[in-house]
Amino acid sequence: MALADTRFSNRRRKLASQLAAQRIDAMLVTHLIHVRYLSGFSGSNGGLLLRKDLSAVMATDGRYTTQIAAEVPDLKAILGRSVGPALLKTLEGPQRVGFEADYVTVSQLRALEKALPEDITLVPVSGVIEKIRLIKDPHELSRLEEVADLANDSLESLLAAGELAAGRTEREVAADLEYRMRMAGSERVSFDTIVASGPNSAMPHHSAGDRVIESGDLVTIDFGAHARGFNSDCTRTFVIGEANDFAREIYDLVLRAQLAGVAAATPGTKLVDVDAACRDIIEEAGYGEAFVHSTGHGVGLEVHEAPAAAKTGSGTLEAGMTLTIEPGVYVPGKGGVRIEDTLIITDGAPKIITKASKELRIL
Amino acid sequence: MALADTRFSNRRRKLASQLAAQRIDAMLVTHLIHVRYLSGFSGSNGGLLLRKDLSAVMATDGRYTTQIAAEVPDLKAILGRSVGPALLKTLEGPQRVGFEADYVTVSQLRALEKALPEDITLVPVSGVIEKIRLIKDPHELSRLEEVADLANDSLESLLAAGELAAGRTEREVAADLEYRMRMAGSERVSFDTIVASGPNSAMPHHSAGDRVIESGDLVTIDFGAHARGFNSDCTRTFVIGEANDFAREIYDLVLRAQLAGVAAATPGTKLVDVDAACRDIIEEAGYGEAFVHSTGHGVGLEVHEAPAAAKTGSGTLEAGMTLTIEPGVYVPGKGGVRIEDTLIITDGAPKIITKASKELRIL
Repeated sequence: MALADTRFSNRRRKLASQLAAQRIDAMLVTHLIHVRYLSGFSGSNGGLLLRKDLSAVMATDGRYTTQIAAEVPDLKAILGRSVGPALLKTLEGPQRVGFEADYVTVSQLRALEKALPEDITLVPVSGVIEKIRLIKDPHELSRLEEVADLANDSLESLLAAGELAAGRTEREVAADLEYRMRMAGSERVSFDTIVASGPNSAMPHHSAGDRVIESGDLVTIDFGAHARGFNSDCTRTFVIGEANDFAREIYDLVLRAQLAGVAAATPGTKLVDVDAACRDIIEEAGYGEAFVHSTGHGVGLEVHEAPAAAKTGSGTLEAGMTLTIEPGVYVPGKGGVRIEDTLIITDGAPKIITKASKELRIL
Repeated sequence: MALADTRFSNRRRKLASQLAAQRIDAMLVTHLIHVRYLSGFSGSNGGLLLRKDLSAVMATDGRYTTQIAAEVPDLKAILGRSVGPALLKTLEGPQRVGFEADYVTVSQLRALEKALPEDITLVPVSGVIEKIRLIKDPHELSRLEEVADLANDSLESLLAAGELAAGRTEREVAADLEYRMRMAGSERVSFDTIVASGPNSAMPHHSAGDRVIESGDLVTIDFGAHARGFNSDCTRTFVIGEANDFAREIYDLVLRAQLAGVAAATPGTKLVDVDAACRDIIEEAGYGEAFVHSTGHGVGLEVHEAPAAAKTGSGTLEAGMTLTIEPGVYVPGKGGVRIEDTLIITDGAPKIITKASKELRIL
């Protein structure tokens, strides 16, 4: 527990120093992912008020009295269904209090304003905790590796069992993969599993339907597990039976682009340049129009989080960030290929935590 | 498609008449569940602007061009990543435009305000679409029955296969049930499956962990499937091996309370009285303190939606509403029982769409 305490108080210290820079005296944190990040509390109703002197108080409702004491032994918790108003009422004296403008709804803000003690000013704050979350600490990195391993082992066991095969539906393959992840410790999927076969593989947002997989199909599987707060994200594309020239051509192209993206993912590299490393190769091959999305995103407490590797945008990679590299080529009517890894950015080459082989696998 | 058009335009007509009553000229709908309810569009980025004259325009981004044309053939769609601002820009002339204050964040409102054409006033609107959703139309009712049947059949096949048994972990049972629902057409779970065994059954919010189920355990399973936009919600409690006196006593008590709640769920009954119908029986038996939550909630596009049957609150049941009746008794250290049905309120007795037997089943 002592180790956990340090982790959460370290994060709160980072937030407090950001608040001081914005002349904010206290921050009301109500986005549950941020509450968990800063305190360890994993219930479905909770909030945290952090003062610039690093003192903090939690709030939750009566269902979680025991849980919050166990998960957050170092902070006092008050009880109340409306955690935001309850926390504001603990404040005294004139001060500026930040709230999470990207998550608090207009109705919730009105409720906070009604509960506001005299002399307190609410200040909208955006992106500050997300910025701290950009750089993962060792605990987060090991949790991310664990959940990526769990998902990867599940995929490999699915393949070894012959469950991805002609004659099966996309839905059956998705159900089998989800079952294997669940039995291995996943609490839920990170997002709806994609099993996109044949012509469906040309649709990047296809989920998993009733189509029966046929020999000759490209099959793209994009899947993620969620365990202990953290998510995984990985995509592989397979060929069933026999690979035709089109399948081989775009597979090789996407793989070359993906490897170039991985190679570019080093500290100090601009995120637009990571995107360009993938995109240039696909454009040079004449498939630029067929790469219809951006190259990648961070993975952590949310399956899609900062940073973003895209054609437009700003920012530079730093060690401790995570990033997916997931170029794709989609040709309507013919099929598509996407290959996605999740990387941890290190001082040297990135560490790929999605370990499945990227060689073309014909099943 | 003609049938579908009528369904969605009927709903939009109801909304438009509510707006007129609030002197609102147009409503910007951006909550995705509401966009789907009013148009049929199921993509992950979309909005709808409905004018009081019933004219309407949709917005989505380039990923969904084909999908929106197929799902919403009767409305024009404009393209843009930021659907709210894009829709506001289609307005001309002075008018009052409603936005969904319960879902639009403070940051999103700021973006809307920036995009606001001259002479347009934004007006916060709360609960209007939710109120229309309270009364389900025949299409919604049949979808809800379908997904409830799917989940029920999955539970029965799990039991028939002997997968709920001593020696298995809660997680394994949850995984098996989710797999069966997935294979039967569920797209995802409605909420994290609860399999709470032995002492864990005394915790209403336990999910499904590594505890091995033992003979003599009470095991509460609370589970839901999600298909084609709609959710199911059902709870049954079983006994493994042999039922002791405590298990029999609280099972019989909760079942009596549940049946009383079902009997009370008729049109014109106040929701507090439905709650009281369950609660009084449990209180009379001396277990009032052990029934720690409210009696029920609506089920539809969301697994928890209006109405609410609770100790406090307002409102009266009407035909076409849905309601769960789910009393529970939880005794720390000893175990707990919860029995939950989802009902459709009709002009006569409620229709129970969660069909599994409620007799005590000893497995």
